[in-house]
This record gives sequence, C-alpha cells and structure tokens, in this order.
Amino acid sequence: MVTHISNRRLYMKKELTVIKVGGKIVEEESTLSDLLMRFASLPGHKILVHGGGRSATKIASQLGIESQMVNGRRITDADMLNVVTMVYGGLVNKNIVAGLQAHGVNALGLTGADMNVIRSHKRPVKDVDYGFVGDVDTVDAKMLQKLIDENIVPVMAPLTHDGQGHMLNTNADTIAGETAKALSNAYDVTLIYCFEKKGVLADAEDDDSVIPHITEAEFKKYVEKGVIQGGMIPKLENAFQAIKAGVNKVIITQADAIDGQHGTVIQG
Amino acid sequence: MVTHISNRRLYMKKELTVIKVGGKIVEEESTLSDLLMRFASLPGHKILVHGGGRSATKIASQLGIESQMVNGRRITDADMLNVVTMVYGGLVNKNIVAGLQAHGVNALGLTGADMNVIRSHKRPVKDVDYGFVGDVDTVDAKMLQKLIDENIVPVMAPLTHDGQGHMLNTNADTIAGETAKALSNAYDVTLIYCFEKKGVLADAEDDDSVIPHITEAEFKKYVEKGVIQGGMIPKLENAFQAIKAGVNKVIITQADAIDGQHGTVIQG
Repeated sequence: MVTHISNRRLYMKKELTVIKVGGKIVEEESTLSDLLMRFASLPGHKILVHGGGRSATKIASQLGIESQMVNGRRITDADMLNVVTMVYGGLVNKNIVAGLQAHGVNALGLTGADMNVIRSHKRPVKDVDYGFVGDVDTVDAKMLQKLIDENIVPVMAPLTHDGQGHMLNTNADTIAGETAKALSNAYDVTLIYCFEKKGVLADAEDDDSVIPHITEAEFKKYVEKGVIQGGMIPKLENAFQAIKAGVNKVIITQADAIDGQHGTVIQG
Repeated sequence: MVTHISNRRLYMKKELTVIKVGGKIVEEESTLSDLLMRFASLPGHKILVHGGGRSATKIASQLGIESQMVNGRRITDADMLNVVTMVYGGLVNKNIVAGLQAHGVNALGLTGADMNVIRSHKRPVKDVDYGFVGDVDTVDAKMLQKLIDENIVPVMAPLTHDGQGHMLNTNADTIAGETAKALSNAYDVTLIYCFEKKGVLADAEDDDSVIPHITEAEFKKYVEKGVIQGGMIPKLENAFQAIKAGVNKVIITQADAIDGQHGTVIQG
C-alpha cells in the first residue's frame, strides 16, 4: 500500500492553481467578499496574486500625488512607491489575508521582499522612465513550495525588491506568470488570469463570444485580423510563454468563474 | 560526539532575541539604517517588532483624518484602521523587510492575520471606545518556531486580526511581550524594549542614571516614590509579567544599544 502511494507520487505532481485578480475585484467590499468565498472553496493548493491600482490612484490623489500612466503602466516615482507599498503591501494585501483567514484559509501575505521570494531589478530607462518599477529576475520556488506544502496559501502583492533595500512596483500579471512558471517543476500548475470579460472574445461587441481554446497560431491570426488587440495581446503572450515554460494550463476568465470550467483555455 | 551534541540540545534551549523598536527609529532613514545594521549583526535567532505611530499620524493628517489619542493610545475608527493597516503593514514593515534582506537577513513581514500568528478580539468598550483595537488572545508559537528554525526572521507589525475578517490595531509592546512569552517554551528568550532613554532612570533629569537591574519589589518602591512614572509603569509591568510567564530576560534600552550589554535588565 505504501509502495503504491509512493509510486503514484513519483508520477503525479500535485495540482496548484495560481489566480491573478485585478484591482477592481479586490477593492470593492462586495466583489472582494464573493471572490474570497469562491477562492476559499477551490480545492487543492493555491496562490492568490492581486492588484490594487485603483486604490493606489485614489489614495495618491488624496495625498496630492498625481498618477501618471504610460501605455497603461504606472510611472512610479519615490512618492508613488511609498503609496503602492502602503496600498498593495498593506491595505489590499492584509484585508485579503484577514478575509481568507475568516474562511479557514491559512493565508500569508507576501511581497517579493518577504523571505526574498521575488528578486527584481529596476527597469532600465529606454523610451520611458517608469521609475521604481521592477523586472523580475528570480522567484524562490523552493521557499514557496515549503509554504504550500504546509498548506499555507500565499497572497502575493505586486511588489518586489532589488536585494539592495529597495521595494519595486511590479506588474501583478508578471508576478502571477513568473510564480506559475517557477513552480511548474514541482506542481501541475493552472494559471488563471481574471479580468472584466468572460474570456478572450471573437467579437468585442458580444460578451458571449468567448473563444474556448486558443493556440499560438490562432492567436497570431486573430491579432492580424484585429480581433484581439490592446491589453489582451501582452496577456496572451504571457500565457503562451508560461505554457512553454512548463505551466500546464492558462485560463483567461472572470473572477466569478474561477472553477476552471469557464473562459478561454490555453494549453500546451 | 553526536550523543554529546544531542545531550546538550536536550538541556539547552536555543536563544531567541525579540526586539521591539518604536516608531521614531524605524521612520527616519538614518536611524532605521543604523538599526537594521545593528539588528543584522546580532547573532542567533531573532524577531523584530516595530511601531509606526508617527508615520500613521502624518499620513492620516495628509488624508484629512484626525488622530485622536487617549492615555497615549490611538483611537482607531474605520478610516484610521485603513491608515494603520497601510502604514504599519505596508510602508513601515516592507521597508524594514527590504532593508534587512539587503543585510542578508531573511526577513518575513507579518501581521497577526498572516498565517493566523496572532489572533485577538476587539477591545470591549468601557470608559473609552478605542475602536478597532485588538487585545491579544493567542500567539501561534508553533508556526513562528517553524519559521525561526528555517532561519527566517519575523518582522512583526502592530496589527492583529479577529478571525472574522477584520484587522485590528494592536500595541507593539504587547505584540512583543505576547510573542516573547509564547516562544519561551521553545527558546531561551531575551526581550528587548527600545525607547528614547538609555534605560530606566533613577533620576529623570540625569540620562546617565540608568538602574542596571530592577526587581519587582524595587519597582514598586520606585513607583511609590514617584521615581518611575508615566509610560514606564506599564512597560515594566509588562516586563515582570513576561518574566513570570517564562521569558528569560527583559532589557529596556536604546535602539543603538541592543547588544544586551546596556540598559535596565529584569530577570527572573
């Protein structure tokens, strides 16, 4: 019996779901409460990666700090870095962690600095100076695995550090993608990107025109035809990259459909 | 040889230093940088507990939220709870964590909600309604021990949770005291409270009149004579309580003298 189990464990990796949810969902009490309930009821090992941009913009504005965006990305000067460190690492992260604990999920809030789980470097200035924004170098998969195997559920804020004492603002999609890739050696990883639509749409005007499966070749054709455009392009590029790096499945869907049965599926 | 070591380990608990530093030290770049260097160079297992009241007051004021204090304690309404969650759990905590990582210390920022390490209940309203303030119920010593034995250094913000989804503002001295007590079964704990003076003073006018050792009987006499007064009284009461609960040594000193060789020592 013992041998049988140990054989199975040799051949089957445990499943892990990495879910990225955007700011809007975690920043409003009613949608956050729904999400936490759904997330808590997901079986198996899991990680939640969150945004928080709307709250950051609001708090920054109240503090008299203007939010400047270029190509949908926030310019992070020293004052804005303080705001996102407060809002992402404190306000949003801890409310999610406390909420999950109330659902019996043993959540642990993490930025990349905590236990050095995600190390990055400040993005070099090319056309645009994004300021204190981090591009990911390394994810400590072993440390995350130790936590996960203790049934701890990491709740990751979109912040990393440079190893020299500085926090860096880091895109939440990137955190989710890099974390999923790093853990794909140890787990059978499903990466779920939640956004405001039901999935990748074949017709932008029709919310029900979800493309159920998409290959990289199909994606390229959709882009050529102009069916897929804007922010969906980097999201899907990330998805294909994740699959190539060993992630089992990427799903693009809405936050109220994170059961793996909905949305657009990208698979190797 | 192996037997010899294992015998020693049976009889000698490993040492753990729990250091509480107030807001002022961690909120100014130069003093924070000094503290992190000193803390990093301390040998053995350690925990850092920090405040952040001055930053909270400043940010609150910038957000148009007035800080109301009663008996030196902050009244925490819903808006103020958001501020302290941001400032303690985000801004102050993550800057310390990133700073320690730069010194090679594998720091992990924690509030009580993270991994459910400190559970509390909202303080019942008696003479004063302190609002969303938590009185500590339980510290999960086993979880902290697992981290510490992995050479992780917990950096604890003065925030707890009630297990029902709410963060609660909690005095940093209390967090340090309760954590030290909870861990005294597993470790030989030294608890160091840092404040602005060199130790407990026999003459408030003379900064060098540090009382090197103090017993509970002596403390009571000093209080009767009016030598010890104000905020030092609860600090010392906490210290004697900690000793009774199994903490090996409590030291009251300045943040630039955390080597255990300075300040006022309370010992069982």
